[in-house]
Amino acid sequence: SRGKILCIDDLRQAAVEKIPKMALDYYRSGADEQITLRENHLAFQRLRLRPRFMVDVSVRNLESEILGSRVNLPIGIAPTALQKMAHPEGECASARAAQAMGTVFVLSTIATSSVEQVAAAAPDCIKWLQLYIYKDRKVTVDLLKRAENAGFKAVAVTVDAPYFGQRLADVRNQFSLPNHLRMENFAKYGATSSATKGANQSAGGSGINEYVASLFDQTLTWQDLAWLKRATKLPVIVKGVLTGEDALLALDYGADAIWVSNHGARQLDTVSATIEVLPEVVEAVKGRCDVFMDGGVEKGTDVLKALALGAKMVFVGRPILWGLAHDGFDGVHTALKILRKELDLAMALSGCTSVSSIPTTLVSRETDRGKL
Amino acid sequence: SRGKILCIDDLRQAAVEKIPKMALDYYRSGADEQITLRENHLAFQRLRLRPRFMVDVSVRNLESEILGSRVNLPIGIAPTALQKMAHPEGECASARAAQAMGTVFVLSTIATSSVEQVAAAAPDCIKWLQLYIYKDRKVTVDLLKRAENAGFKAVAVTVDAPYFGQRLADVRNQFSLPNHLRMENFAKYGATSSATKGANQSAGGSGINEYVASLFDQTLTWQDLAWLKRATKLPVIVKGVLTGEDALLALDYGADAIWVSNHGARQLDTVSATIEVLPEVVEAVKGRCDVFMDGGVEKGTDVLKALALGAKMVFVGRPILWGLAHDGFDGVHTALKILRKELDLAMALSGCTSVSSIPTTLVSRETDRGKL
Amino acid sequence: SRGKILCIDDLRQAAVEKIPKMALDYYRSGADEQITLRENHLAFQRLRLRPRFMVDVSVRNLESEILGSRVNLPIGIAPTALQKMAHPEGECASARAAQAMGTVFVLSTIATSSVEQVAAAAPDCIKWLQLYIYKDRKVTVDLLKRAENAGFKAVAVTVDAPYFGQRLADVRNQFSLPNHLRMENFAKYGATSSATKGANQSAGGSGINEYVASLFDQTLTWQDLAWLKRATKLPVIVKGVLTGEDALLALDYGADAIWVSNHGARQLDTVSATIEVLPEVVEAVKGRCDVFMDGGVEKGTDVLKALALGAKMVFVGRPILWGLAHDGFDGVHTALKILRKELDLAMALSGCTSVSSIPTTLVSRETDRGKL
Amino acid sequence: SRGKILCIDDLRQAAVEKIPKMALDYYRSGADEQITLRENHLAFQRLRLRPRFMVDVSVRNLESEILGSRVNLPIGIAPTALQKMAHPEGECASARAAQAMGTVFVLSTIATSSVEQVAAAAPDCIKWLQLYIYKDRKVTVDLLKRAENAGFKAVAVTVDAPYFGQRLADVRNQFSLPNHLRMENFAKYGATSSATKGANQSAGGSGINEYVASLFDQTLTWQDLAWLKRATKLPVIVKGVLTGEDALLALDYGADAIWVSNHGARQLDTVSATIEVLPEVVEAVKGRCDVFMDGGVEKGTDVLKALALGAKMVFVGRPILWGLAHDGFDGVHTALKILRKELDLAMALSGCTSVSSIPTTLVSRETDRGKL
Ligand SMILES: Cc1cc2nc3c(=O)[nH]c(=O)nc-3n(C[C@H](O)[C@H](O)[C@H](O)COP(=O)(O)O)c2cc1C
Ligand SMILES: Cc1cc2nc3c(=O)[nH]c(=O)nc-3n(C[C@H](O)[C@H](O)[C@H](O)COP(=O)(O)O)c2cc1C
Ligand SMILES: Cc1cc2nc3c(=O)[nH]c(=O)nc-3n(C[C@H](O)[C@H](O)[C@H](O)COP(=O)(O)O)c2cc1C
Ligand SMILES: Cc1cc2nc3c(=O)[nH]c(=O)nc-3n(C[C@H](O)[C@H](O)[C@H](O)COP(=O)(O)O)c2cc1C
Repeated sequence: SRGKILCIDDLRQAAVEKIPKMALDYYRSGADEQITLRENHLAFQRLRLRPRFMVDVSVRNLESEILGSRVNLPIGIAPTALQKMAHPEGECASARAAQAMGTVFVLSTIATSSVEQVAAAAPDCIKWLQLYIYKDRKVTVDLLKRAENAGFKAVAVTVDAPYFGQRLADVRNQFSLPNHLRMENFAKYGATSSATKGANQSAGGSGINEYVASLFDQTLTWQDLAWLKRATKLPVIVKGVLTGEDALLALDYGADAIWVSNHGARQLDTVSATIEVLPEVVEAVKGRCDVFMDGGVEKGTDVLKALALGAKMVFVGRPILWGLAHDGFDGVHTALKILRKELDLAMALSGCTSVSSIPTTLVSRETDRGKL
Repeated sequence: SRGKILCIDDLRQAAVEKIPKMALDYYRSGADEQITLRENHLAFQRLRLRPRFMVDVSVRNLESEILGSRVNLPIGIAPTALQKMAHPEGECASARAAQAMGTVFVLSTIATSSVEQVAAAAPDCIKWLQLYIYKDRKVTVDLLKRAENAGFKAVAVTVDAPYFGQRLADVRNQFSLPNHLRMENFAKYGATSSATKGANQSAGGSGINEYVASLFDQTLTWQDLAWLKRATKLPVIVKGVLTGEDALLALDYGADAIWVSNHGARQLDTVSATIEVLPEVVEAVKGRCDVFMDGGVEKGTDVLKALALGAKMVFVGRPILWGLAHDGFDGVHTALKILRKELDLAMALSGCTSVSSIPTTLVSRETDRGKL
Repeated sequence: SRGKILCIDDLRQAAVEKIPKMALDYYRSGADEQITLRENHLAFQRLRLRPRFMVDVSVRNLESEILGSRVNLPIGIAPTALQKMAHPEGECASARAAQAMGTVFVLSTIATSSVEQVAAAAPDCIKWLQLYIYKDRKVTVDLLKRAENAGFKAVAVTVDAPYFGQRLADVRNQFSLPNHLRMENFAKYGATSSATKGANQSAGGSGINEYVASLFDQTLTWQDLAWLKRATKLPVIVKGVLTGEDALLALDYGADAIWVSNHGARQLDTVSATIEVLPEVVEAVKGRCDVFMDGGVEKGTDVLKALALGAKMVFVGRPILWGLAHDGFDGVHTALKILRKELDLAMALSGCTSVSSIPTTLVSRETDRGKL
Repeated sequence: SRGKILCIDDLRQAAVEKIPKMALDYYRSGADEQITLRENHLAFQRLRLRPRFMVDVSVRNLESEILGSRVNLPIGIAPTALQKMAHPEGECASARAAQAMGTVFVLSTIATSSVEQVAAAAPDCIKWLQLYIYKDRKVTVDLLKRAENAGFKAVAVTVDAPYFGQRLADVRNQFSLPNHLRMENFAKYGATSSATKGANQSAGGSGINEYVASLFDQTLTWQDLAWLKRATKLPVIVKGVLTGEDALLALDYGADAIWVSNHGARQLDTVSATIEVLPEVVEAVKGRCDVFMDGGVEKGTDVLKALALGAKMVFVGRPILWGLAHDGFDGVHTALKILRKELDLAMALSGCTSVSSIPTTLVSRETDRGKL
């Protein structure tokens, strides 16, 4: 241990020492050779900042308005499944930390806490539901309604996961959901229901992948986005977009926002780092809706770069899991406080006084610079 | 050992533990400093995929029509010499695995099983003959006729090997064909014939290189391709093309297909990775014939990239040898099943439903992206 | 130890063995992940020299005229705080070495020796004052007047540090100024004054960062540069510029010279290496004033490249600290002699006979060359 | 030891085990941080070959006509000083090996064998004299005349060494010429003469550098090239050119050939790899004279690339020293035979049948390819 927790990497170290290898591997793995996993991080490091000085930075405003909600900082909690493997309080602890910081918490469809449990634990938190559309559409519609009733403010439909990617460590570990945990959103269907079976069984592979293959709907097309828009009154965010083409299609079929993501590099290996496709998507969208992004965000400067390149808000997945594993609510709170402090300082040191006024010229790409 | 065999790299590890160093070195080596050997692999890793979503991917069609044959997957077995060093069943086991998967098996001229033996072992397999043209043209014509009679469906004439490249480990090992093995296609000529002598003798160097230098025809020109076209009724594929210029010449002299290959990086070190020259060849050919490729293919995403950049089919050399060394027929079968499964998943996760409809825009090159 | 001190890297090694970890870490650290720290150095290594020959290089002239002073070599001492942690004679030893070499010494506002002490120790040295503007402007004006009276020749106002960057090692070490040392420029205000308090106290973080946050003026704008120009009769250099835009603003508000610097990579991580932004600033300034630079300079060829790309003079921070830690005045003297000798030889070996006649074409960038 | 000597790298290993560290370091070192030393090699590795096939390569012609002499292979021996430190027979052994291979041997001015001794040892070798112009022009003119009388065929005047670069290991070793060795070209002046003194003495630095500084003429300009042309009837090659500008000046002042070289990366660190500046020089010269090159050549493919990019002949320095250290005449012979064999094979495997017909298109640069 390195002692005091100063940065997200410290939290990761702390988490590594605390949780069992099966859970750790499930959280940290990327697909296949993990090239995109490394790239998500390295691509941020390759971008250069062009700070401006002699600006009054004594006060920084980190607030913004996101899909009708006021958020205190432009860093939300991405949906990650099965948070109770990290800490008994799981998603509820994470949501409470988001509430404490005044930011968004996104609950996974396949969470180990239900929409109702999270709503009860963090009533004032801005909550969104991440949606996987099941073959059984009634299951999906029911979940949407429950989320609406529980006060969730938006739905992020994940489009990049008709199947789950191959994460080698999970297969080697024969990963399965620990027996004492359930996918709580489907608990009402009982242990034998098709909506819950499978995740903790496995024919020698990764239980979760078999679950996904059997229950998620692989026939989805953009028409189903139109269906989803009709099925809920909440704004719909399309999560997982990696091309300008898909961003435009999403808009055509009614998306209220686009979320650039490669699912934490867990789906198709060798897709681009998200920060590298963000500009393409932002350019395609041309301001017609908000663009969010996640993937590899670990430092305040990462957030600053994403905002400069056009993201309205960024989300973090694993940093939250490391915080949760380290110390439950307090650990997640620490993760968010670290990122907030780093972003705040990065803004002060680059002449930015509000998140809405960060100029594109703050970031220089290698091609702009001419490579020395 | 890593336990379960999940990917080609696991097969390689398994093979390393099973076969003698001399055979292992013969199989794994590239020429000289092995720069191209590394590049064949790294160049795939540098390419980025641009997956598309919200496409009905519940069914994927991996079939295609290749030179008149229906193949179940666009991944064939490249010709590699001396497979019995890996396993007693050698080429016959490999061909049976290709048959089981419904794909192409290409038999090397200098195989340790004859065209007749392979045909007998795998009668329903789509078999092609890889051809080295010998100084003694009668030897070559005879082999062609026997292949035709044995039901082979095409000839892939290798143009990149007037001599063999220098593979340092083979010279250090004084590599020679083990005494109990023969180049079966020439067994009829007897052990003292010029068509067989040499490979298992060596004046302190690599026996196989001396064999090649003494028997292969170094005077070949494109006119000899025209001769070959007349000498056989089978379609002729030109294997080893690395430039657009040569692709056009091959077409001019009657080639039915072009096979981009650098001979598994075993000939001239520092030639480009094959995936990096594929676009140049595809552009030159302009659809006048099918283009195949091999070199460094190890993952489903590698296959997907090659197909997106214009290859009609890819071939794998060493992955098959690792499977064969690991477990004979079953090992080769495993290798092909792994690649099929990975390709299938990569297609599902990138919005591709058939191998014939993979768009070029699925791959982004660094220059297209603008280097961040 | 490597024995004889031949290059700056030898001095660093020697220093590492001599001073306590807390001081060492304070000196060597960069902000956060230290990406810019490495880049400052690597960016020099990436530049290529294009030497010219058959020029009479028997005599090299390293002199130049800098803001009205004749300097013997175009390598000055950058302001670095708290030099007495390296050696009891601290800033006075450094200034005496600059004097011995006939170059500029820049005293930090937060030095452990006062303007008067340094002036007394090195009366003939060309001394500049580095200025941090305090919230309490009287403190600042008083320091300016004292510097003028003590014979200082210019003021370099640092614009990149409204707060200090996060240097992780300092926080882990709970860095604070050793008890026997003081910020001598503010000694007259007494230990309880707001201008001195804090640096050696810390609420678990880095004492110096808290000092900065509480005393430095974060509201500064370019108007305050105009104020500074009125507040002193000395020429004013703006230190910390990293964009062409800011260089032009500095000129508009009265700057007499621009100093390209990223504060030794200690402020905002992932800003560009200074040698990579120098051309942009030089181009913006278009000769309207002198441009200086610092950051990562360790070799004679680094200096040569900076001069070729338009810097009138370069400054070194850490190399001086390593010299000081190694052997006080003699160590700093050695550092400057090494750099002078290396620059002199680099000029001789590239056909440059005077620092004012180094052509831009001496340096080739990757883009000019076409990347082979 | 790796056993059999198969490549230049094997020779280097063998040499490392045989000669004392002081000599080894003198031979292998590059200037300062040795960035260019590594680049000389790496730049070759970055270039890609575009081999052509179906060319009759049964016979390869490696001969060419160089400054009026017929050479059997386009790989000559670069001048390297003090070869007797590697082997008692020193330069005479090297020249005999060049003679045996039918290629050029270039004798250093500061060799440990005289022009007469080398001429006697290798009467049929094509010998050139490498010239350092001394302050004492009589010494130089005398050496020129003796070389002419001894049958030398050309003079290569080295322009990149008014002083010697700083090679750190030599300074740390306090390198000096072993007592039993002399710079034989100046033996007639006696041990106390200014033309010999100094090399084996040192005031704590590198003896050879002090020798150079005191005796070589640092005032040389292009006018002195005109003088040299008048002073000898031999063709004059200008060795050490690294820019198109200097190549043109050399031609203007009478150069008969240009030799692109960075002195084995021993002079100014961070100059470009020679293979990267070769195209610029070839383009400037536009065929008005032959262009030679050296620096980092270790493989047959390196030679092929240099010839493709416009060099008429390449030279090797260290590979010869490793051969010499390993086994005197036989070792040098081995080095040349390895390079010849590798070049010969590389030509056969890329469709080149004579050194004069290697097309520029054989090499692809990263920019041509578009970086995948
Ligand atoms: C362990 C884990 C579980 C995840 N589960 C989900 C999920 O259930 N639904 C979803 O849309 N994304 C899921 N994601 C992707 C995240 O929402 C997010 O895109 C990703 O974690 C961001 O990258 P980062 O982890 O580098 O911050 C998961 C990611 C991880 C690491
Ligand atoms: C051990 C070995 C033997 C080979 N023998 C032949 C051969 O006899 N004829 C031929 O045309 N190519 C031969 N090749 C080249 C392969 O056909 C193919 O081009 C190459 O293996 C593809 O690269 P990969 O091994 O990275 O998949 C051989 C390759 C290997 C590794
Ligand atoms: C230990 C340390 C203390 C510094 N203190 C100051 C300072 O007080 N004021 C200032 O303007 N810059 C300060 N700097 C930045 C230097 O002036 C200079 O920009 C930097 O050191 C140059 O980079 P180099 O260390 O790589 O040569 C400091 C740098 C270091 C390393
Ligand atoms: C030990 C050594 C001594 C050298 N001595 C001389 C010399 O006396 N004169 C000269 O012009 N070049 C000299 N050179 C440079 C060589 O002529 C040649 O440019 C260089 O060695 C080529 O690079 P390589 O060693 O990578 O083949 C020397 C190089 C070495 C390595």
